[in-house]
Amino acid sequence: MASTIDRTRLAEVRAREDAEFDRRTRRSAELVERARRSMPDGVPMAWMAGLYGHRPLFVAHGAGCRFTDADGNSYVDFNQADLSATCGFAPPAVLDAIAERAARGLQFLLPVAKAIDAAELLAERYGLPGWQFTLSASGANAEAIRLARHRTGRETIVVFGGHYHGHLDDTLVEGDEHGARPQLLGVNRRAAAATRVVPFNDLAALERVLDRDEVAAVITEPALTNVGVVLPAAGFHAGVRELTRAHGTLLVLDETHTQTFAYGGLTRAWALHADVIALGKSTGGGIPVGAYGMTADLHEWMERHRDVYVGDHGLATGGTTYANPLSLAAVAATLRHVQTPAAFERAAALGARLADGIEAAAAPHSLPWRAHRLGGRSGYCLEPQLPRDASDAARSIDVELTDTRRVHMANRGVWDAIASAGPAASFAHGEADVDEYVAALVEFLDDVC
Amino acid sequence: MASTIDRTRLAEVRAREDAEFDRRTRRSAELVERARRSMPDGVPMAWMAGLYGHRPLFVAHGAGCRFTDADGNSYVDFNQADLSATCGFAPPAVLDAIAERAARGLQFLLPVAKAIDAAELLAERYGLPGWQFTLSASGANAEAIRLARHRTGRETIVVFGGHYHGHLDDTLVEGDEHGARPQLLGVNRRAAAATRVVPFNDLAALERVLDRDEVAAVITEPALTNVGVVLPAAGFHAGVRELTRAHGTLLVLDETHTQTFAYGGLTRAWALHADVIALGKSTGGGIPVGAYGMTADLHEWMERHRDVYVGDHGLATGGTTYANPLSLAAVAATLRHVQTPAAFERAAALGARLADGIEAAAAPHSLPWRAHRLGGRSGYCLEPQLPRDASDAARSIDVELTDTRRVHMANRGVWDAIASAGPAASFAHGEADVDEYVAALVEFLDDVC
Repeated sequence: MASTIDRTRLAEVRAREDAEFDRRTRRSAELVERARRSMPDGVPMAWMAGLYGHRPLFVAHGAGCRFTDADGNSYVDFNQADLSATCGFAPPAVLDAIAERAARGLQFLLPVAKAIDAAELLAERYGLPGWQFTLSASGANAEAIRLARHRTGRETIVVFGGHYHGHLDDTLVEGDEHGARPQLLGVNRRAAAATRVVPFNDLAALERVLDRDEVAAVITEPALTNVGVVLPAAGFHAGVRELTRAHGTLLVLDETHTQTFAYGGLTRAWALHADVIALGKSTGGGIPVGAYGMTADLHEWMERHRDVYVGDHGLATGGTTYANPLSLAAVAATLRHVQTPAAFERAAALGARLADGIEAAAAPHSLPWRAHRLGGRSGYCLEPQLPRDASDAARSIDVELTDTRRVHMANRGVWDAIASAGPAASFAHGEADVDEYVAALVEFLDDVC
Repeated sequence: MASTIDRTRLAEVRAREDAEFDRRTRRSAELVERARRSMPDGVPMAWMAGLYGHRPLFVAHGAGCRFTDADGNSYVDFNQADLSATCGFAPPAVLDAIAERAARGLQFLLPVAKAIDAAELLAERYGLPGWQFTLSASGANAEAIRLARHRTGRETIVVFGGHYHGHLDDTLVEGDEHGARPQLLGVNRRAAAATRVVPFNDLAALERVLDRDEVAAVITEPALTNVGVVLPAAGFHAGVRELTRAHGTLLVLDETHTQTFAYGGLTRAWALHADVIALGKSTGGGIPVGAYGMTADLHEWMERHRDVYVGDHGLATGGTTYANPLSLAAVAATLRHVQTPAAFERAAALGARLADGIEAAAAPHSLPWRAHRLGGRSGYCLEPQLPRDASDAARSIDVELTDTRRVHMANRGVWDAIASAGPAASFAHGEADVDEYVAALVEFLDDVC
């Protein structure tokens, strides 16, 4: 824990900065007040209120890595809508592609040729031959799990502690290797009971579950990215792959966040071998889309179990507006024009600059912090040893410190929305942006230490 | 059943028309062939193949109620992407709104003022005060069920036979009042087991389930629209509302399809009273979006159980790209500029013209058919008595007849995609379009009878 930071001082700074935030965002406050009459908490989606220790801002406009709020305040953003806008808030290549597509029709419930482009580009990048599209990573993970359940004839799935795979009843759980229960309110308890939770980097625990239960799929991010960052230990991924193969269990890699950190995701960067790869968020450059890739075996399995409108039922995949032409045009434009190999190299260099800056800012105050380093992604580890699992990572979640830092930085034009999932440099940032983040952090630490 | 149609003749016509379809769609065939290397069945979403008795078309472009395929064939469409494109394939007001929004940023994970517009418009139309947005009706129904489960502290939900509420494990089921099992492959069996299935229009069966089980929610369309159309019997909705209130069970009305048939949905047209109303598909005029409205009680309940990023967990609602500004701009533009009261009146008049035309086409051949009539929606009831429930409706599902009719009409430029969910006149059709559909039907019946 950040034990060297004085909590009284922190509370004083927080009170002062909260007052300043209120003063600077009066138009947003009026909008929230009006909005509460037609939307719970005044927001159209609950997280927009729940992510913050302060009232949410209303945004007027944004481009690149910067947005302007309803009061005219401008911010450089280091969360980029939880990595769904890493291509920038208004990427020209994506805007051109959707304008061109929209003029020729939004949605037909039939394929367009651009779908082939999108699928071929993904197949080339991620090394899996068969692709399907949804509207979000949640949808992609849900279908990956169904495919795994049907292919294996098994029901149990395994996740790792610190996981997040979208808003599925199956994975919105907490628990241990013996069982799981809903983590959030309203989740179907019965659905959650088919899930097991194992510590990340713990091959022995994984092996126990695979020996004991008939497991359809293990689903994991290549590195955990929602509890700070937890990197795989040497040999972990090879072990997971070996164990799952030996037990007839499918391996689903969720690259929703990590696709931003390396060309072809960490799958390609680390030469991993998945049965299914799930994508979403930035895959459409800011247009809602999800996607999943599958092996030749699963590709053929899907064809053999196609759902037809009468007769024998098939696999429960798809939705009316899934794979709509607008989403697919956005995917193709994003992959071809924004997420180029050079762009990934550039973002990774910025990520290193960001991590260096965070560590350099902490050092003069004798804070024993480490910065996370994963492509453009950084983040705060508040102790000298990087975490090996979610329990380790939890020690770096310091709400008072985080909330005070975020409002302090926001008042100085730097936005860092999701405390456990950033900051991250993206395709939309430059060196000056990173330096602005670090300067705001220095100012904050000078103020509270 | 359409017993007066000679099956040998039908098979002859089918073979001839299938050959003609193949001849006319060679470029689509080449695209499917190439696409199968990167996508199961050569489509980016499985239904695009499963909905048809023939190879799927690749679409080049479309506007209004017409699209052109990759071979240059043009079609007037009476399914409009399963009612997700009822505003037309490229509605100018929606295109303008998304272009204006995109230029100012696609997605921030923060609210924009347009969200208030969208929520207030929905609140005014549907008479429920609190609104949240998702990416699809599936997402809206999933959150409605979670909200109901948490608010009531109960787990069981009830659906009616012939239901469709999106791709949820909870509702992709078949069964009876004692229990349910997955209808499609891959669905979590445990999740499905919390659902009960009751015949539509059977208040006695509903009362037995509500007496026996602790039911969180009854979820239904105001009229069934996915098995042809099944209208509620007199007093059915009043009875459902009375029984659910008496048993402390919430009522969720899924207006995903029926929103197209009357201004403010059938909720307003029929003065229904729901605890939650779920929307999707055409709500965004062709841009992916879902939404649900809730009572003041649930609005306040959501605020009291907001999920925050640390500490006590809240309700499992939301997703990173849910309620993105592009979707909300599309909703506001659709409601204000396309789905006007006058547009609904116009579509309903076209629906009556379509139903009249279907019945007039059948009469000379002594076919005892009835046409469905619900706003712009029509459809084929192959017997003199309209269905009271899904079992009745199933007698009008005649695959040979439907598939032959669809390919026959397609070869003459008329598209009728989902056999059990159309045809329907929409905001994009005119009288000449309806007459073109009816003329193609007349030609088909002259051919096979």
